Amino acid sequence: MTTPSIRITDARVIDLRVPTSDQMLGSDPFHKQPDYSSAVLQLQTDAGLTGVSIVFTVGAGTDWICHGIQDLCQLVIGSDLETFTTAPFRLYQRLIDHHQLRWLHDGVFRMAAGAILNAMFDLWAKSQDKPLWKLLVDLKPEQIADCIDWRNISDALSREEAIEILRQRRGEVPRRETEMTQRGPRAYCTAGWLGLSDEQILSTIRKLQSQGFDSFKLKVGRDLQQDVQRIRFMREAIGPQCNLMVDANQYWGLEEAKRHISQYRPYGLKWIEEPIARDDVLGYIELAETFSTSQPNADFGFACGEHAASPVIFKQLLKSGAIQYCQIDAVRVAGVNDVLAIILMAAKYNVPVCPHGGGIALCNMIAHYGMWDQIAASGQGETQLVEYIDFLQEAVEQPVQVRDGAYVPPAAPGWGLEFLPEFIERHRYPDGDVWKNRPAEKKGTAFEA
Amino acid sequence: MTTPSIRITDARVIDLRVPTSDQMLGSDPFHKQPDYSSAVLQLQTDAGLTGVSIVFTVGAGTDWICHGIQDLCQLVIGSDLETFTTAPFRLYQRLIDHHQLRWLHDGVFRMAAGAILNAMFDLWAKSQDKPLWKLLVDLKPEQIADCIDWRNISDALSREEAIEILRQRRGEVPRRETEMTQRGPRAYCTAGWLGLSDEQILSTIRKLQSQGFDSFKLKVGRDLQQDVQRIRFMREAIGPQCNLMVDANQYWGLEEAKRHISQYRPYGLKWIEEPIARDDVLGYIELAETFSTSQPNADFGFACGEHAASPVIFKQLLKSGAIQYCQIDAVRVAGVNDVLAIILMAAKYNVPVCPHGGGIALCNMIAHYGMWDQIAASGQGETQLVEYIDFLQEAVEQPVQVRDGAYVPPAAPGWGLEFLPEFIERHRYPDGDVWKNRPAEKKGTAFEA
Repeated sequence: MTTPSIRITDARVIDLRVPTSDQMLGSDPFHKQPDYSSAVLQLQTDAGLTGVSIVFTVGAGTDWICHGIQDLCQLVIGSDLETFTTAPFRLYQRLIDHHQLRWLHDGVFRMAAGAILNAMFDLWAKSQDKPLWKLLVDLKPEQIADCIDWRNISDALSREEAIEILRQRRGEVPRRETEMTQRGPRAYCTAGWLGLSDEQILSTIRKLQSQGFDSFKLKVGRDLQQDVQRIRFMREAIGPQCNLMVDANQYWGLEEAKRHISQYRPYGLKWIEEPIARDDVLGYIELAETFSTSQPNADFGFACGEHAASPVIFKQLLKSGAIQYCQIDAVRVAGVNDVLAIILMAAKYNVPVCPHGGGIALCNMIAHYGMWDQIAASGQGETQLVEYIDFLQEAVEQPVQVRDGAYVPPAAPGWGLEFLPEFIERHRYPDGDVWKNRPAEKKGTAFEA
Repeated sequence: MTTPSIRITDARVIDLRVPTSDQMLGSDPFHKQPDYSSAVLQLQTDAGLTGVSIVFTVGAGTDWICHGIQDLCQLVIGSDLETFTTAPFRLYQRLIDHHQLRWLHDGVFRMAAGAILNAMFDLWAKSQDKPLWKLLVDLKPEQIADCIDWRNISDALSREEAIEILRQRRGEVPRRETEMTQRGPRAYCTAGWLGLSDEQILSTIRKLQSQGFDSFKLKVGRDLQQDVQRIRFMREAIGPQCNLMVDANQYWGLEEAKRHISQYRPYGLKWIEEPIARDDVLGYIELAETFSTSQPNADFGFACGEHAASPVIFKQLLKSGAIQYCQIDAVRVAGVNDVLAIILMAAKYNVPVCPHGGGIALCNMIAHYGMWDQIAASGQGETQLVEYIDFLQEAVEQPVQVRDGAYVPPAAPGWGLEFLPEFIERHRYPDGDVWKNRPAEKKGTAFEA
C-alpha cells in the first residue's frame, strides 16, 4: 500500500451558502431560519488530485470558519501526502496541539482543523482510488489506532482495547463488506421540521415511505401541548411499527426537559435528541436515571452528539451510560481522527452510532462512517440508523442515494465531495448570483435575531 | 440612575501581539512559545466615550477572533447604550442564541460575543463615571439576575436563589466596599514558568515577596521527577507558610494525572490547576474522589476554569464538588453576563473564586470581578486569590498595581482598558514596527509546531 508522491501546492476556500430559509427547511426552535451552508476546502496538488472537505454550517459565520481554514492551510501547503499517510497523527497534533492556536479551543478552531484533516484523508483515499470508507476498512487496526489522540480518552478506551475490538471484527470484515456494499447503512429522515404544516409533513412521510423509509424524526421544544399533538399526529401517520424520534435541539433546561419528556412516554419513541445543552454531561446522566433508560422496557433512549465539541464530551456520555444513541458529526470535531476515536468508544460501550446528517453534502460524508462502523467497528447494522437529508443534492457530482430505506454505498474515490462548479459560482457568498441578486428585504435574514 | 443617550457609531478591532516568546514568559507544557496578545475592541460613540474590551490570546489565532468581533459589531453599531442598559440580556441573547451564528459554538464565537458584551459594559460604567466593579456593586439584585442566561443552569442555581444570595449580602456591602477600597483582592503570581532557570525563579520570588506576595504558582506537567524537584525547590524558597500552587495546563490524561499528583502530596500544595482536559467533568469528579478533596485534611484541592468554555461546564464542576477553586476567566465566556452567573454559582456552592489572569491587560479586567465577588457575592476575601501577572503593564494608561500582596482597587471608569496609542501602533499585527522589523528567523514562531 504505497502512496505515490503527491505534494499539496495550493488551497481554495469557498464560502458556500444556500437561502434555504425561504422554504423553512431545516428549521428548529433555535435555528429559525437556517441558510444551509458549507465552508468548502479544496487542496490542490501537483498530481491533479484535489483533496476536498466541507464544514457544514447554517448561514452566518461560514466566513469565520473559512478564515480559520485559510490560516491553517499554511501548515499543509508544500507538504507531501506521504508524510501525512505514514503518520496521520502528526498533522493532527500540529493542528490541535498547536502551541498558540490551541488557545482558540473547540468550536470554530476544531472545525477548521477538521476541514484540513478531512481534506487530507480525501486525498489519501483518492490516491488509492478508494472511497473513504474502503480506505478505513483496509487500514490495519494499528494504523487506525495511530490516528487517534489518546491523551484524554484512555481512561475510557485504551489504544490496546481499540486494537482488540478491531481485531475481533477482522474475521467477519469480508462478509460484512459484501453485505454492506449490497445494502448500505439504514437511513432515517426528518419529516417534521418546525415550520411545516401537517399537510407538508404528511406528504413528506408518504414520499419517504415510498422510498422504503421506516424511521422518521420530528422537531419539538417550544410548546408542550402542540408538541404532544404533533407527536401523536406523526405516530398515527407512520403507524405503530415505524421508528419515531424527536429532536429538541437543546431548547430545554434540565427541569424543563423532564417536564416535557415525561409527557412523551405513551408514543413509543425510539429516542429523544438533544433535550438539553450539548455539554451538560451530568444533566444527561440525570435524565438517563430519571427515565430509567438502562432498563430493557425503557420508554425511549437519549441521543446527542451533533454539537458535542470534542471526543472528551463523547467519552463521558458513553462511559457513563448517559446516552443510548451516539450521533457523531463528521465536521464538528477534528476530522477522521476524532471520529474514529468516538466510533470506537461507542463500539466498546455498545452504543449504536447514528451519524448526524445535514444540509450541503454532510450526508455524503457520514455515509462513509456508517459503512466503516457497521463493517469494521461495531460490525453490525441492526441498531444503527444514519440520518439522511433529502435536499441540496443538486450541489454535487455524486449525490447520496437511498434505496429501500438504506444508503447506497458511496463508490466514488474519497468522500465524493466534488461540487458542480456552476453550483459554487451561483451560491458563493456574498458575490454569487443567488446572493447578489437577492431582494434587499431578504438579504438581512442572517442578522435578524 | 439614568443613562444619557449615547449611540454606538463605529468600531475599531485591533490585532495586538507582543513577542513574549523571546523571554519564555508565559510558557507551559502546551504553550511553549506564547506571544501574549489581545484582540482589542473599541466601540466609538457620539458622546465621546469609547467602549473597550479585549480578548486575551497567546499569538496566532488573534486574527480569527478579530474577524469574529468585526462581524458581530453589526449587531451593535447604530444601537443605543440605553437599549442595552435597560435589558442587557437582550443583546446577550441576540449574540449567543443568534439563529445562525450559534452553530459556531463556544471557543472563538463565545469569546467574540464576550468582547461585544464587555465593551458595552465598559460604556455603561463610563457613562456613570464608575469603575466596572462599582457599577456591578450598585446594581440591584434583580438587575444582576436579569443579565443572566438561566436556561441551562437553573438546576444548579435558580434566579430566585441568586437574588436571595445577593440580598443576604446587601447589609454588609457598604462595610465590605470600604474595606475593599482600602485593600483590594489578595493576589498571587506565577514565579515558576516552564522555560525559566532556578536562578530566574528565585529572583522572581524575592521580588514578589518584597511586594508583599505570599502565594506563588509553578508550571508542571512534562517530567514527574523534574517537577517534584521543582516543587521542592519552590517550597524551600518560599518557606512553609506561603501558599504554593501548581498548574499542569491540561497536559495529563486522567490516569497519568493520578500518577503524577500522588507524588505531590508531601509539599503542602494549595491547589493543582488544570490536571486534565478542560471539559472532562467526570474526570474532575474522579480526581476529587481519589484525592478526598472534600475531607478537611485533604492534601490539596483542584482548580480550573480558564479554559472552561461555558457556564454549563462550570455548573457541573461546582454542583458536583469536583473543584475546590473556581478560576473564572474574563474573556473565555460571553462577557459580564456569563461571569456573573459563574460567580453566583460559586457563591452558592462555597467555592472560592480565584480569577485567571494573563498577558495583555487581562488582569485589569479580573480585578473588577475580584472586587464584586468579595463585596457583593461571596462577600469575603479570606479564601479567594486573584491571579496577577507582572508584565506588559506598559501597554495601558492605568496599569494594575499591587500593594502588600493585594490588588490596588481599580479607580478609573469602566474596565480601565485604555491602551497607549503608541503601544498599539508598535505592536499591531502584522504591520506594527515590532512585527515588521522582526528578524526573519523569528517571524515564524507562530507557525512552528
